[in-house]
Amino acid sequence: MRELHSVHVVLREVQKYLKPPAEVGVPVESSLGLYSAETVLSTFKLPPRPKSVVDGYALRASDVEPASPSSPVPLRLLEGILRPTVNYPLSIGPGEAVRIETGALLPEGADAAVPLEDTFEEGGRVYVLKRVSVYENVSLPGEEYDEGLTIIRRGERVKPQSIAGLILEGRSRIKVFDTSVRILNVGDEIVSGTFFRPFTHFFVKSWFEQHGFRVEGLSLARDDVGEIREWLEGGEAYISVLLGGTSMGGHDFTVKALESLDPEYIVHGFAVQPGKTACLAVREGRPIVAMSGLPVAAMSTLEVVVKPLLRSLGLEVPEYPKVKAVLTRRVTVKMGVVGFVRVRVYRCGGGLCAEPLMVGGSGSLTSLLRGNGFVVVPEGVEGYEEGEEVEVYLYRGVE
Amino acid sequence: MRELHSVHVVLREVQKYLKPPAEVGVPVESSLGLYSAETVLSTFKLPPRPKSVVDGYALRASDVEPASPSSPVPLRLLEGILRPTVNYPLSIGPGEAVRIETGALLPEGADAAVPLEDTFEEGGRVYVLKRVSVYENVSLPGEEYDEGLTIIRRGERVKPQSIAGLILEGRSRIKVFDTSVRILNVGDEIVSGTFFRPFTHFFVKSWFEQHGFRVEGLSLARDDVGEIREWLEGGEAYISVLLGGTSMGGHDFTVKALESLDPEYIVHGFAVQPGKTACLAVREGRPIVAMSGLPVAAMSTLEVVVKPLLRSLGLEVPEYPKVKAVLTRRVTVKMGVVGFVRVRVYRCGGGLCAEPLMVGGSGSLTSLLRGNGFVVVPEGVEGYEEGEEVEVYLYRGVE
Repeated sequence: MRELHSVHVVLREVQKYLKPPAEVGVPVESSLGLYSAETVLSTFKLPPRPKSVVDGYALRASDVEPASPSSPVPLRLLEGILRPTVNYPLSIGPGEAVRIETGALLPEGADAAVPLEDTFEEGGRVYVLKRVSVYENVSLPGEEYDEGLTIIRRGERVKPQSIAGLILEGRSRIKVFDTSVRILNVGDEIVSGTFFRPFTHFFVKSWFEQHGFRVEGLSLARDDVGEIREWLEGGEAYISVLLGGTSMGGHDFTVKALESLDPEYIVHGFAVQPGKTACLAVREGRPIVAMSGLPVAAMSTLEVVVKPLLRSLGLEVPEYPKVKAVLTRRVTVKMGVVGFVRVRVYRCGGGLCAEPLMVGGSGSLTSLLRGNGFVVVPEGVEGYEEGEEVEVYLYRGVE
Repeated sequence: MRELHSVHVVLREVQKYLKPPAEVGVPVESSLGLYSAETVLSTFKLPPRPKSVVDGYALRASDVEPASPSSPVPLRLLEGILRPTVNYPLSIGPGEAVRIETGALLPEGADAAVPLEDTFEEGGRVYVLKRVSVYENVSLPGEEYDEGLTIIRRGERVKPQSIAGLILEGRSRIKVFDTSVRILNVGDEIVSGTFFRPFTHFFVKSWFEQHGFRVEGLSLARDDVGEIREWLEGGEAYISVLLGGTSMGGHDFTVKALESLDPEYIVHGFAVQPGKTACLAVREGRPIVAMSGLPVAAMSTLEVVVKPLLRSLGLEVPEYPKVKAVLTRRVTVKMGVVGFVRVRVYRCGGGLCAEPLMVGGSGSLTSLLRGNGFVVVPEGVEGYEEGEEVEVYLYRGVE
């Protein structure tokens, strides 16, 4: 048996060989969930000037300082009504006022608004019955939208409010990271279709899609170094994933094909249980991940190796919701090995319990369907006791 | 001012008028994130019979009971090798064994496997040096995939492991709920394009898309009851959303248009802050939601009214990750009113703090971009004190 590589050591070593994914422009409208390659800050204020939040009159607060119901202050009424939809240049001087609707910008010279109910009109004048402070009844510049806000960070997935901000900024396109993935399914038994359909392919493909990656169609190869190598030499996707052919005792056509390409970096065998047969390589700066074709081993590699790898490239791959739950059985992992433990979280007492599902090993889709979460046991820990509280990542809801 | 309606009362009342969304068939491969209209249980076991997990020999455990290195048990070797990719009918009798590879099914009559290293061959016989128990070195039927597992629940969003299960079941299509949405943007100022782009539209559209809904393109209408009514009378989408024209003091073209259609159910005005001008109607069993065109009010309506409404229809709309954080300022809401409080969560001390962002009211995209979460203050609570620990829904990561 070959030496198993420490996940965190590999993730550190591989850094100097990897090039980040390319940056590509896409329409803002179809960027939801993609990884932004730009940090975009907002560049202007809304309202641009103080804006009335009442129907009434725009005026200078200092003019109505002495106003009261018993001694209304008369102001000369300028012609017209300022409306939210019509913006015309106007400026008011001392002793003047102009009608204004809710949502309209104050004219130059005004610094407050007084609501209709505190006024009356008579003979071309408006009488103000109540004093107002400077900026009373207005929303201030920047309250709705301000300069210097982070609309989207480089590496962040585009969210609904980022799209709103980009649209408001007048942006029609945004640069995102090219997060394209292609997947090769290796195995005579898959090509021949003898026993089962390549369901792990669809699991892995959906996993990437769920995390905002774009996955190319289904490719198959026999247990044949030449055939696998040919696939590896073609293709433009940033990430190449190979399922199957990674065994550590002979049945390792995928690893041999990778080695034959003389990549800048390659390791085979990770100190992870399950998923130890995974292989990580870098060729022309792009990551190639080979993993077991068995679903649990593949999921372990995706969560324990691939997700941190993508994060180290600056992509803020989201985490599943985390909950604390009490283990119903002891879990043990060999020292120095990362444990990927499938669990079923359920309500018990006032809290949550997590039942470890060890059934069936790496090939057990049963454990992924019966379960709804997983616990990652770090390298330096040998496991957790029954009754211990652990942190569980939930990939499915608690029933 | 009209009476404001209690959210939970409306959500209860509206039930009897709503028809759930239609069920439509889609390819399994493109069903990720959609809401399943079926509960699918697994129908078979893998392996179908015990399967060897070693390279060695299939045999009957009882035959090798007395085996030890000093007294190996000889078994008659049947011809051929059982491989994972080749399945032929074979049965072994007492005193017989057959070569088997890892992953191959045991033949009829065998109940265990012994690894190569515990055997040697000589003169057409295999000598077994070590006893094995019944089912030793095999994986049992159902370990990898079992009967009766829930591959997907009705109402659940389709996940990567559900797709794997459906593919394994040989399913090419799945019935999902028709979660189509169409959005009308109401307002002279939007149609004329005077002041700003309809960024709230893109926020709301993305919100629905993020939650697995399919949204039709951009529609605009003037502040005109006839124009809005015409849009309402067309269209096939399950959910109709209208942005703007919901004011409670006159500027309510959207509400008037809805009322003119004589819907089965309509309420205008919710006890929610912000977002009180929202209007919910049911026409021909389908929900129509009108909400403010201001982004914070719209988000409040989406989270406080629309999300629970969709859940009550049986769609398991996912929740954002929840964290506990300490309020840095007091938050107050009127008794009987649900508060939708935007906050910025940040690390402080060993935990998390939540700063309420009250800046700018309903129109403040600033508060959505500066913030990363929200607190929902229920109807029966008047608010929370500074220093109190509250539950925050995070729509963006904590920096």
